[in-house]
Amino acid sequence: MKPLYVSVIGGGQCGAAEQALAEEVGRLVAREGATLVCGGMGGVMEAAARGAKEAGGTTIGILPGHDRAAANPFLDHVLTTGMGHARNLAVVSSGDAVIAIGGSYGTLSEIGLAARIGRPVVILAGWRLEGGEGAEGIRYASSAREAMHLVHGALEAAAGRPAGAG
Amino acid sequence: MKPLYVSVIGGGQCGAAEQALAEEVGRLVAREGATLVCGGMGGVMEAAARGAKEAGGTTIGILPGHDRAAANPFLDHVLTTGMGHARNLAVVSSGDAVIAIGGSYGTLSEIGLAARIGRPVVILAGWRLEGGEGAEGIRYASSAREAMHLVHGALEAAAGRPAGAG
Amino acid sequence: MKPLYVSVIGGGQCGAAEQALAEEVGRLVAREGATLVCGGMGGVMEAAARGAKEAGGTTIGILPGHDRAAANPFLDHVLTTGMGHARNLAVVSSGDAVIAIGGSYGTLSEIGLAARIGRPVVILAGWRLEGGEGAEGIRYASSAREAMHLVHGALEAAAGRPAGAG
Amino acid sequence: MKPLYVSVIGGGQCGAAEQALAEEVGRLVAREGATLVCGGMGGVMEAAARGAKEAGGTTIGILPGHDRAAANPFLDHVLTTGMGHARNLAVVSSGDAVIAIGGSYGTLSEIGLAARIGRPVVILAGWRLEGGEGAEGIRYASSAREAMHLVHGALEAAAGRPAGAG
Repeated sequence: MKPLYVSVIGGGQCGAAEQALAEEVGRLVAREGATLVCGGMGGVMEAAARGAKEAGGTTIGILPGHDRAAANPFLDHVLTTGMGHARNLAVVSSGDAVIAIGGSYGTLSEIGLAARIGRPVVILAGWRLEGGEGAEGIRYASSAREAMHLVHGALEAAAGRPAGAG
Repeated sequence: MKPLYVSVIGGGQCGAAEQALAEEVGRLVAREGATLVCGGMGGVMEAAARGAKEAGGTTIGILPGHDRAAANPFLDHVLTTGMGHARNLAVVSSGDAVIAIGGSYGTLSEIGLAARIGRPVVILAGWRLEGGEGAEGIRYASSAREAMHLVHGALEAAAGRPAGAG
Repeated sequence: MKPLYVSVIGGGQCGAAEQALAEEVGRLVAREGATLVCGGMGGVMEAAARGAKEAGGTTIGILPGHDRAAANPFLDHVLTTGMGHARNLAVVSSGDAVIAIGGSYGTLSEIGLAARIGRPVVILAGWRLEGGEGAEGIRYASSAREAMHLVHGALEAAAGRPAGAG
Repeated sequence: MKPLYVSVIGGGQCGAAEQALAEEVGRLVAREGATLVCGGMGGVMEAAARGAKEAGGTTIGILPGHDRAAANPFLDHVLTTGMGHARNLAVVSSGDAVIAIGGSYGTLSEIGLAARIGRPVVILAGWRLEGGEGAEGIRYASSAREAMHLVHGALEAAAGRPAGAG
């Protein structure tokens, strides 16, 4: 069975509440044997990676610059891209689904890119997006556990679709 | 004096109301001698370019693929990138400011990328973005004229800031 | 008839000989009504753009950063990408053909990217590439005039191919 | 001590000789505990990953599309980017050094990009690059063992440089 990848996105700096949420998401991702992908920096990215490592999981960071040393210390594998915010596309593309926790405009761009390429997106804290076409396709969770539950529901629904429906 | 560039973003397909708004924005951009940048495809991008050409303006499209023939017919200059949705970053980076009209997830990603790199963003129709850090920095307009007015206000405010504050 | 775009690539700094070659290529591109595309910086890019403007042509630069002010002063239109050297793909993709004049590793990467996506490449000075698969597909010219001649030969040969052969 | 990453680049299809070289490079990379990074497809990329896995190493592939299923079966971790050949920059950026084995224009672009961002490049088979500025900075090896030796020499030389000299 192919392994699941979950991308966790959010601010490079964050408060205690978002940090706790990100850590819990990281632990839950790790506990089901999924690989955690993130943007490799601090804040939510670091907290999610730390949570995943606490639970024995695998963590991968994809950095905007060329210097691996910019990565947070909870990553098993660090890729660098040197393409600035264009790397956001790689971060969300690499996940089978994306969980957003807080964050600002960079996170917003990742939510948009993820949804654009058909990755299920669950927002656990932060952005509320309305009015645009397809706004109803973005999912919202009020706990880490619910976020993972919504991820699985979305992936199962997608798997049930006729081939090519993506 | 250096010329102004305005990026207009929105759906590759759109209804009559958004088309009319996009055309009017295009005309206003052209009338003040600014260059209109867009993603080069149909819908809002095409309508904005058509409006700009009607008013004698200059239009540039930046395509996701490698084939210039995919461009709409109202573009003076067409660039191709071959990098899929990563080209969204070039579309918004190339404008001094960005006006969003309707659209779905791709437009959402462009709003996020534009704001992330400090380009003023005005949403004229479509997305309403709340809850994220900096959500209050996104501007909303209810007419094409107001959108251009907000663009100028934002650019003047930015120009008034101490150097490097961007 | 659709206009021709020619991308001219080469070093951001260059000596007098390459500068003269680049200017002449720019003039020739402009004289046949083609649009000159380049990376927007100094050296060969600036010289080619200057030549094109002297001959009344149209010039477009595609920059690696987000700041339009980094562009050379001989560009009619400047696009910014913010994706570093990944912008090289956009520079060569935007031309129907590519002419390389001198340059170092960045130019080498553009030669490779251009050929990879099927753009005819003519090297007028600098790199000599052997041993790789398809090395014989890279063309070499010993004058600006010969470079343009080879560009036209390559484009005509490509146009004569059965559809989809690219 | 931070782990070493080595990017192996080459054709998506290759003959028996290049396949054998790539496998041996993969084994050598793995035996010294380094992580092997590649473009994730077939040919040289697959052979290098297979060699690394035979020797118990860690392998990562970075794909041009959005579909992880396009990866070869010898990768521990697969990232997708959806940015076509722009992903080449991420492939070479992610290695501390790059070893090229055969290949065509795509490999040529990766050689250029790698050298442009200061990654040592060793060509083990295929391209011979002359005439461009810095051509003498590209290293050539006649065996997998020599390639690894040259990688280490280059990295040690770079580490001995004053900080910021890169």
